Amino acid sequence: MRILHHIPLSPFSRKVRLVLSEKRLPFELKVEKVWERRPDYLDLNPAGTVPMLVEENGLSIPDSGVICEYLEEAYPDTPLMGRTLAERVEVRRLTAWFDGKFYHEVTRNLLGEKYMKRLIGRGNPDATALRAGYANIRYHLDYIGWLAETRKWLAGPSLSLADFAAAAQLSSLDYIGDLDWTLNAPTKDWYARVKSRPCFRALLNDRVTGINPPDHYGDLDF
Amino acid sequence: MRILHHIPLSPFSRKVRLVLSEKRLPFELKVEKVWERRPDYLDLNPAGTVPMLVEENGLSIPDSGVICEYLEEAYPDTPLMGRTLAERVEVRRLTAWFDGKFYHEVTRNLLGEKYMKRLIGRGNPDATALRAGYANIRYHLDYIGWLAETRKWLAGPSLSLADFAAAAQLSSLDYIGDLDWTLNAPTKDWYARVKSRPCFRALLNDRVTGINPPDHYGDLDF
Repeated sequence: MRILHHIPLSPFSRKVRLVLSEKRLPFELKVEKVWERRPDYLDLNPAGTVPMLVEENGLSIPDSGVICEYLEEAYPDTPLMGRTLAERVEVRRLTAWFDGKFYHEVTRNLLGEKYMKRLIGRGNPDATALRAGYANIRYHLDYIGWLAETRKWLAGPSLSLADFAAAAQLSSLDYIGDLDWTLNAPTKDWYARVKSRPCFRALLNDRVTGINPPDHYGDLDF
Repeated sequence: MRILHHIPLSPFSRKVRLVLSEKRLPFELKVEKVWERRPDYLDLNPAGTVPMLVEENGLSIPDSGVICEYLEEAYPDTPLMGRTLAERVEVRRLTAWFDGKFYHEVTRNLLGEKYMKRLIGRGNPDATALRAGYANIRYHLDYIGWLAETRKWLAGPSLSLADFAAAAQLSSLDYIGDLDWTLNAPTKDWYARVKSRPCFRALLNDRVTGINPPDHYGDLDF
């Protein structure tokens, strides 16, 4: 069986889970406590990160960006990266935006400080980082809302990796109660559409020890 | 004419210049002072980063990762990302390693602190960051050396984007005199081979106002 090594609230692990499920590729999840730096895991992935996908033929694929490019090439039946060159640029541009800019400006400052730091025993959240995260999330939600108002899906007329990259970041933040859905109505409507897809179900049912998500987290109508 | 908006010592701009030249695609360079946040530039690339490529047909492509995927799809004649799925995973894995891990652990701590900070008027280098950069570069040079000893090129039997991603980071650090080439002989040999390619010539001839590179920088035999 295909195995995805992951951490439940890692937005990058979540993105890959969504892509695998949307492409209807069965997989088994294994939690990898990356901070323990297991030698067997580092042999397969010297960067020591999650997610890492291991195919049934033994091919191991680290890095969520590398995994998503691989899945698109290996399993093209449900295309998630656009068809024309221009469409593919836009899908990849927005995916890089959410994986890079959104993560560094928002998710790392909130989820990273409040959850990951505690998980690996690195102390209390830094107040400056939290302030930056709460300030930055506002303009990011506005940008998502603007995209959602001007297009059917974030990168254009078709559902794509860009929607999953964005939804993965938001779902991790939503789990820890850090999303104020009243801030932007079009963003909320778009997220409700993504979250209602069958590929999202397993994510919404996951529970992490010691943290309960807010009531609306698993509610498909909020 | 195709235009690449860049900053001369940005390793990500350098990576794209190497790929364009290796694929024999003519282009014009325009320096973009990203810290000035020009509205016309932000219209094309809301992330406000370099590099950004603008094709003759008007298609604008931001983010060095997105640009390199685009160039491989649009101009496949000189393939730089491997042929089989496994080869492509390895090229992308190493490219992500140099763009992500190497950049954050080394280049940002050295070039970022010593050059970029001064360029944008953000004060003096942080001593802790410099120490981290000089400590981290040693194990990164060892890893490159190990790859170079066990394979013809970093990702396998063919020259690939992984070689350019690594060489771009190293060439930026070499320009500011931060590379001690005595640390790892196989890394030095591999770099001499990459640096001798015609695609590297323009990079080695570039000069940045106020900083002269060490004598060996442009010397193909060191």
